[in-house]
Amino acid sequence: MSLVVQKYGGSSLADAESIKRVAKRIVETKKRGNDVVVVVSAMGDTTDDLLDLADQVTPLAPARELDMLLTSGERISMALVAMAIANLGHTARSLTGSQAGLITDDTHGKARIVDVTPGRITSAIEKGHIVIVAGFQGVSGDTKEITTLGRGGSDTTAVALASALQADVCEIYTDVDGVFTADPRIVSTACKIDRISHDEMLEMAASGAKILHLRCVEYARRFTMPIHVRSSFSAKEGTWVDSTDEGETVEDPIISGVAHDRSEAKITVVGVPDSPGMAGQIFQAVADAKINIDMIVQNISTTESSRTDISFTLPKTDGQTAVEALTQLRESIGFEQIQYDDQIGKLSLIGAGMRSHPGVSATFFKALAEAGINIGMISTSEIRISVITSSDELDDAVRAVHSAFGLDSSEGEAVVYGGTGR
Amino acid sequence: MSLVVQKYGGSSLADAESIKRVAKRIVETKKRGNDVVVVVSAMGDTTDDLLDLADQVTPLAPARELDMLLTSGERISMALVAMAIANLGHTARSLTGSQAGLITDDTHGKARIVDVTPGRITSAIEKGHIVIVAGFQGVSGDTKEITTLGRGGSDTTAVALASALQADVCEIYTDVDGVFTADPRIVSTACKIDRISHDEMLEMAASGAKILHLRCVEYARRFTMPIHVRSSFSAKEGTWVDSTDEGETVEDPIISGVAHDRSEAKITVVGVPDSPGMAGQIFQAVADAKINIDMIVQNISTTESSRTDISFTLPKTDGQTAVEALTQLRESIGFEQIQYDDQIGKLSLIGAGMRSHPGVSATFFKALAEAGINIGMISTSEIRISVITSSDELDDAVRAVHSAFGLDSSEGEAVVYGGTGR
Repeated sequence: MSLVVQKYGGSSLADAESIKRVAKRIVETKKRGNDVVVVVSAMGDTTDDLLDLADQVTPLAPARELDMLLTSGERISMALVAMAIANLGHTARSLTGSQAGLITDDTHGKARIVDVTPGRITSAIEKGHIVIVAGFQGVSGDTKEITTLGRGGSDTTAVALASALQADVCEIYTDVDGVFTADPRIVSTACKIDRISHDEMLEMAASGAKILHLRCVEYARRFTMPIHVRSSFSAKEGTWVDSTDEGETVEDPIISGVAHDRSEAKITVVGVPDSPGMAGQIFQAVADAKINIDMIVQNISTTESSRTDISFTLPKTDGQTAVEALTQLRESIGFEQIQYDDQIGKLSLIGAGMRSHPGVSATFFKALAEAGINIGMISTSEIRISVITSSDELDDAVRAVHSAFGLDSSEGEAVVYGGTGR
Repeated sequence: MSLVVQKYGGSSLADAESIKRVAKRIVETKKRGNDVVVVVSAMGDTTDDLLDLADQVTPLAPARELDMLLTSGERISMALVAMAIANLGHTARSLTGSQAGLITDDTHGKARIVDVTPGRITSAIEKGHIVIVAGFQGVSGDTKEITTLGRGGSDTTAVALASALQADVCEIYTDVDGVFTADPRIVSTACKIDRISHDEMLEMAASGAKILHLRCVEYARRFTMPIHVRSSFSAKEGTWVDSTDEGETVEDPIISGVAHDRSEAKITVVGVPDSPGMAGQIFQAVADAKINIDMIVQNISTTESSRTDISFTLPKTDGQTAVEALTQLRESIGFEQIQYDDQIGKLSLIGAGMRSHPGVSATFFKALAEAGINIGMISTSEIRISVITSSDELDDAVRAVHSAFGLDSSEGEAVVYGGTGR
């Protein structure tokens, strides 16, 4: 007998009919002889509706109360899913994050899981029940306050429970067929990836692929928990995310996919005196404002002025705060001005195979050049190349790169390396 | 410094604007130097909407999951009220029934409070916070399951907390000005009662007055907790419900008011053999079906047949079940037939003064006779007379009795005894 953890997102639980369909799927899994633990998100637009209500009441809601408010959304969906399962003649027990043993720190709005004590889950499983757990939420170990895990929290709940329960698989149900080589809304020829490593998925998530949240993949990678991303609307196999060593066989694709991200902005600090410690001061100020930065580029100092430009990217939502923090440093550092650009896009090519295939970069930049794309900043990891383009050139850039690496589905599902370095 | 417990119902929390108005009222109470604990119901129609959803998912929802579902309604409203208070510059902490220490038995859907352990409330009060508690819900002491208290549960929560915290008063806010001498929708001249005893309020609630739920009044009476029923839409004094001995001063009204109830039905078991134990068998069968019966009348046996008729009233919602249970007894008891009538109404006259004023009954029945009302069954307590009429005569009956006892507001707010027995 296997233990399967399944997670259903809000779009799979949009209304009573969807909930009944999900219940049927859960019961089928149980009937195949599995123990089943299900993690649910709030129904459809519930979370947005609740945020709207909060907005109407106050422009600045206390984080503790916002958590109290938002966690009611999952409570509604889990009770309804449990009822729908009962209606099919099986027994289900819904549990809040707190009841399920999701122990977090006390950072409201983006709590981190510090422990999972799933005693009530295992005892319900032993009694033959299907267990439904509210995603996205936990309880702080110290203060016993209700917390939420932030964006993508339900995926993280599912992986954390799967790890704690030593489940055989964590199935993440969504409204698409799996992870794609690029966003199908931009690249019509994008195709579903059958298998991707935790490392690659981590880079995909960090580079803007929205199908799985970064923290969920980090968690799965740390605990080597296989994830099966699949559609709740079909019985087809989706994408397996697991930890088998990458690139071991020649059949393995070198490139997994192309991710893009429009959520970042670029700040350039112009005319920074080219003396030691200047970059340190700038990034300390940004860090003090609790802003995570992504890519950094420092231009070469021009000989006559002994001044340099420092550019970095950061979430658009932090743009205002960062500009204000830096403006206060203008006199002490002596830079000339700050330029802020939120009309940028980031394109990333991800593939575990590229570490042993030096020609990947050449193919990548040639494809962009031939498509006439101007590149702003560049950053790389062992298994990823990212560039910043202007926002309106991003879609063309994604298509060009996707095609250059033979990822288009017309060329067959097997991904062929189209570069020069083989 | 006083401790005030306030309870706001769903109609006072219908939308964001209402919530802001309630928050203002709470903050004003705090500013007057009081510690404030607030119990909230779910917003407006939330509970009905959730029940609708459950209905769409399954015709027969498990009680445990229904409790899980419905308790989310109060969680939403309490978080929003706490946010609205924060927006006015005060700090509030919302607590679920479980966090607030409302310990119940494990009867889902109509749990009874077995203990109140308000440690988190008192510690929040000591820190200067306003505390907002989810009404209607608790947690079972044994199984740690989330429970609901059933209809009127939030009122009961408020009184239970007020008692446990030794509050000075429990204010129940509603959308009317207080308790009236009759339902103003039926008797346009009904007037607000300034003060009523726990005993009288208990009879009013048991007789169909909907403003306070029976269990809440029972609880208040047992712990001699004064309740102030008032409007959340005005600053006017409402109705005080307290335990000062009734009828001590001559100014006290003899009659408090007229209550009515359309929620009952009448079952008549016709032609029951007039031998010992027959009534016992009938009511045992009804009790076994977990149905509470209200009034009972046994007609005098007619000499020729040695048979009798037994009539009783019960909630309409239990009618079907009771008829089925009794039908199964037809042969063993040997009765002739069962008559079911759900077109009945109950009228009750309540007043602590009537125990020392023997003329009340005479005035009561004379008023009904003059209005041409047919009376079905009669029952009395020390401070109440109730009769069953046909449903369509009920309104006239209420008006006739209200007028006969001088309760009409045109005769002045001071209620004058209009009977013969003074």
